[in-house]
Amino acid sequence: MNCIEGAVEEKVVKYKKEYRFTLEDKKIDLELVKKSIEHTLLKSTATIDEISKLCDEALQHGFYGVCVNPSFVEYVVEKLRGSKVKVVSVVGFPLGATTQYIKARECSELVKAGVDEIDMVIHIGMLKSKEWTYVFEDIRSVVEASEGKVVKVIIETCYLTDEEKIAACVISELAGAKFVKTSTGFGSAGATVQDVHLMKWCSEKLSVKASGGIRDFNQVVELMRAGASRIGTSSSIKIITEGVER
Amino acid sequence: MNCIEGAVEEKVVKYKKEYRFTLEDKKIDLELVKKSIEHTLLKSTATIDEISKLCDEALQHGFYGVCVNPSFVEYVVEKLRGSKVKVVSVVGFPLGATTQYIKARECSELVKAGVDEIDMVIHIGMLKSKEWTYVFEDIRSVVEASEGKVVKVIIETCYLTDEEKIAACVISELAGAKFVKTSTGFGSAGATVQDVHLMKWCSEKLSVKASGGIRDFNQVVELMRAGASRIGTSSSIKIITEGVER
Repeated sequence: MNCIEGAVEEKVVKYKKEYRFTLEDKKIDLELVKKSIEHTLLKSTATIDEISKLCDEALQHGFYGVCVNPSFVEYVVEKLRGSKVKVVSVVGFPLGATTQYIKARECSELVKAGVDEIDMVIHIGMLKSKEWTYVFEDIRSVVEASEGKVVKVIIETCYLTDEEKIAACVISELAGAKFVKTSTGFGSAGATVQDVHLMKWCSEKLSVKASGGIRDFNQVVELMRAGASRIGTSSSIKIITEGVER
Repeated sequence: MNCIEGAVEEKVVKYKKEYRFTLEDKKIDLELVKKSIEHTLLKSTATIDEISKLCDEALQHGFYGVCVNPSFVEYVVEKLRGSKVKVVSVVGFPLGATTQYIKARECSELVKAGVDEIDMVIHIGMLKSKEWTYVFEDIRSVVEASEGKVVKVIIETCYLTDEEKIAACVISELAGAKFVKTSTGFGSAGATVQDVHLMKWCSEKLSVKASGGIRDFNQVVELMRAGASRIGTSSSIKIITEGVER
């Protein structure tokens, strides 16, 4: 048994013995929500005009960042230069099934283009095949290519058993990621409070980004109470409008 | 007006003037269907065991090829060595929204790993933005990296107007692709006989691969009568079983 297997097994044993789901009763206000939102547009049909509007909205409302596909990063970096809004992009998105080499190169390209954070997709099939060394190296190669930028690992919870979710989190931490993220938004389902809580429980060191199907202010509050510190959504304007009306 | 714009406009004018939808009354038998099928497994959860089974089925039934994600190409090339079954993989899949540089590098990687054909996704957002030079260069960079291998351009018809479909086909031909392909299988809809016929009408030189939502033998026959010479499907076994029973 290698050290990855050992770490996964230990966490699974701990999970079976002592894991309990609870929601923290902390206050989540509109300002905190705004500062946690990554305003996101990843659909394949997104035009330059739509990406431009995304940036304008992020500037106007003071969102944490924008999240776009790699081919729009140069444009977005230029457009947001001098502002506090972070530029986030994706690697191996949304299937996670390209080669390790290409994931690492894509990450390098993004760093060179001026990205602040990188959301990579885990190799879901290799995780399901229990090829944990492969999964580790896949993440590690992106972390190394990131030159110290924040790397988030999208684990696509909708396709995973609880044990696979735990393995994904343990391996992401070992490989040097800073965040785990629930969903691509292209899977069969998105973020749930249960998954966010479990992911946060898995590691003290990892932060959690909730994403996929997030469309209401109340949903955001629940996800943050469950442990999410970042929210990826394309419904940001609707969400903060609801937040004002509360 | 540059030469790409001119070629697109000319084809659109011709389309408005003389395009008519018809199905050819040619005989499509089971053997022809088998030799046209690219037996496909592109879902993100695919395990090594499932990819292995895909290859075994392609060998057993004499399919044209298998189509898998890049990270499985090395394994598949090894497993199919010495057989007639072709290895097909994908570039920029399924959103088409990574950078031109990464699409070209991904293609180079696949060629180095021994792939026979490359199915790349067009940049849909740039097509919709009418950035036709960008779309041309995006395809051209993959064709150049392919070292003479067959490149198919997935245009994701479900998101396009007829004029955008025509533009996609005209630009694909100008950029040196050999095929246009209807769908990724991850969009809102798959192949239709209308789209296949229009795509075939757009260019004498381009062949058409129909893909996405193809699950019945009769559907395959219709798509081939409309002009498809290659069929991408994950339901190959069901399809040929129906073909035997006819």
